[in-house]
Amino acid sequence: MKIVECVPNFSEGRDREKVEAITREIASVGNVKILDMEMDASHNRSVVTFTCEPQYAVEAAFRGIRKASELIDMDSHQGEHPRFGSADVIPFIPVSEVSLKECVDLANQLGKRVGEELKIPVFLYSDAALAENRKNLENIRHKNFQYEQLKTEIGKGDYIPDFGPLELSKAGASIIGARDFLVAYNVNLRSQDMEIGKKIAKALRAKDGGLSFVKALAFYLEDKKCVQISMNLTNYKKTPVYRAYEMVRLEASRYGIEIMESEVIGLIPLDAIIESSRFYMRMNSFKSNQIFEKKVWE
Amino acid sequence: MKIVECVPNFSEGRDREKVEAITREIASVGNVKILDMEMDASHNRSVVTFTCEPQYAVEAAFRGIRKASELIDMDSHQGEHPRFGSADVIPFIPVSEVSLKECVDLANQLGKRVGEELKIPVFLYSDAALAENRKNLENIRHKNFQYEQLKTEIGKGDYIPDFGPLELSKAGASIIGARDFLVAYNVNLRSQDMEIGKKIAKALRAKDGGLSFVKALAFYLEDKKCVQISMNLTNYKKTPVYRAYEMVRLEASRYGIEIMESEVIGLIPLDAIIESSRFYMRMNSFKSNQIFEKKVWE
Repeated sequence: MKIVECVPNFSEGRDREKVEAITREIASVGNVKILDMEMDASHNRSVVTFTCEPQYAVEAAFRGIRKASELIDMDSHQGEHPRFGSADVIPFIPVSEVSLKECVDLANQLGKRVGEELKIPVFLYSDAALAENRKNLENIRHKNFQYEQLKTEIGKGDYIPDFGPLELSKAGASIIGARDFLVAYNVNLRSQDMEIGKKIAKALRAKDGGLSFVKALAFYLEDKKCVQISMNLTNYKKTPVYRAYEMVRLEASRYGIEIMESEVIGLIPLDAIIESSRFYMRMNSFKSNQIFEKKVWE
Repeated sequence: MKIVECVPNFSEGRDREKVEAITREIASVGNVKILDMEMDASHNRSVVTFTCEPQYAVEAAFRGIRKASELIDMDSHQGEHPRFGSADVIPFIPVSEVSLKECVDLANQLGKRVGEELKIPVFLYSDAALAENRKNLENIRHKNFQYEQLKTEIGKGDYIPDFGPLELSKAGASIIGARDFLVAYNVNLRSQDMEIGKKIAKALRAKDGGLSFVKALAFYLEDKKCVQISMNLTNYKKTPVYRAYEMVRLEASRYGIEIMESEVIGLIPLDAIIESSRFYMRMNSFKSNQIFEKKVWE
């Protein structure tokens, strides 16, 4: 079964009734499943995580954005986190049997509807971005450029929206896009030497000559008295988890340091786990539909 | 979610309408999912594979057995495969979050109902067996001891049933039990030397000093021009797949032979695949509910 994930961020983190009303709208479509709903009072922001088959994703997200635009007035919104609009950031993420390209298409369909039907300006970001400077969310809106600044700048220079009007209503603007699933993966070392830890993290990092889709930092874990190489794998399909693990092992071995354990933080797609078996046990022809539960569940 | 598998074998492999009627009865219960239905004309036998939550398994199997007893007359049944009854063999198999012990309980519940309500003699086998000589199905019924022989022997010596009457109707007797999920796993070697292949298979086999829950044979694959170590892993929880793989690798290495590839034939439980990642990447604390799809599907 094709599954896409969508993680809309809304600019309301204190009034539970409003956030639940938005979530209900999202859940009212097709086979949408709400996996999580988190409210943050100090950021005055909430994050809804839902999944569904791709054909329902645009309608579900659209209904959430519409309800948010009705309930949230950006002129009276305050909170620590930078924000542009009532529905602030809406990424689509491929999970199962869906490509990133399909998610870019969903972002475009949603952006068009939000611009035309709700009269909310839309900026496409991440892999859906049409301009290089909109690939990183932090380039679009940040601490010093938020809803208040956008009000006067919209329609000028870098702030011509990809869809919708050249002016803001009280719903503000939305940032819509597509990105790959992010795997948070840590490797703990049998070492307390942070100098070595930093060298290993550097050897792993894409920007320092390491693996293409790896962000890595070294931390010292007080409870386990060990160094941790903490990674974000931003494209587990191109840089699989086992390759990150083996690269840490290789770099640690030059200092005579062993790996104690590794851990996935949060969720990981089935195919990312299967790929490790394919590698280590040379199960090159193994298909995910050989997993018993997949056959039962789908 | 708890999932149990049940694979009843029925003594009808030619009349599709009858087998479909039996299958419909099974599918009429709770959240039963029919995964497969195979008919074999020369054996005159069919195999239905279904899964459900444990609380529905006994009722579903019972309805299938009842319908088979109505539709199949053992006095007129002929076929190559040895058989005792219209519903011949019915094993329960733990798949997800269910223990073998729970499946033994299901076998007992089903056996009791089939004996009392349908007046069909029931023999418990495999892990549900009450006597050592009923652990192996081949000890109970075989080419030289089938429905025809049981007719006169039932109630005597080794043929006192665990449930039900001491005489046979035209529905014959049923053999009900519980067993672990069987993983069919092959490792292909970069070698054409069958003598070495046989030595490696022997080193793997439980009965020859190898791994406890491994049955292994060596074959020569004409299409790939290589030796295959073909294994049945009869308890993947106690003897995990990676251990079988690594043992083949170890034994092959003494002859300087590399592994070409390995393959799972058919289905494998999710946890068996995860266990390989836990081993190779030292992900000792990884839980199966960290698999994204599991959260979405369940």
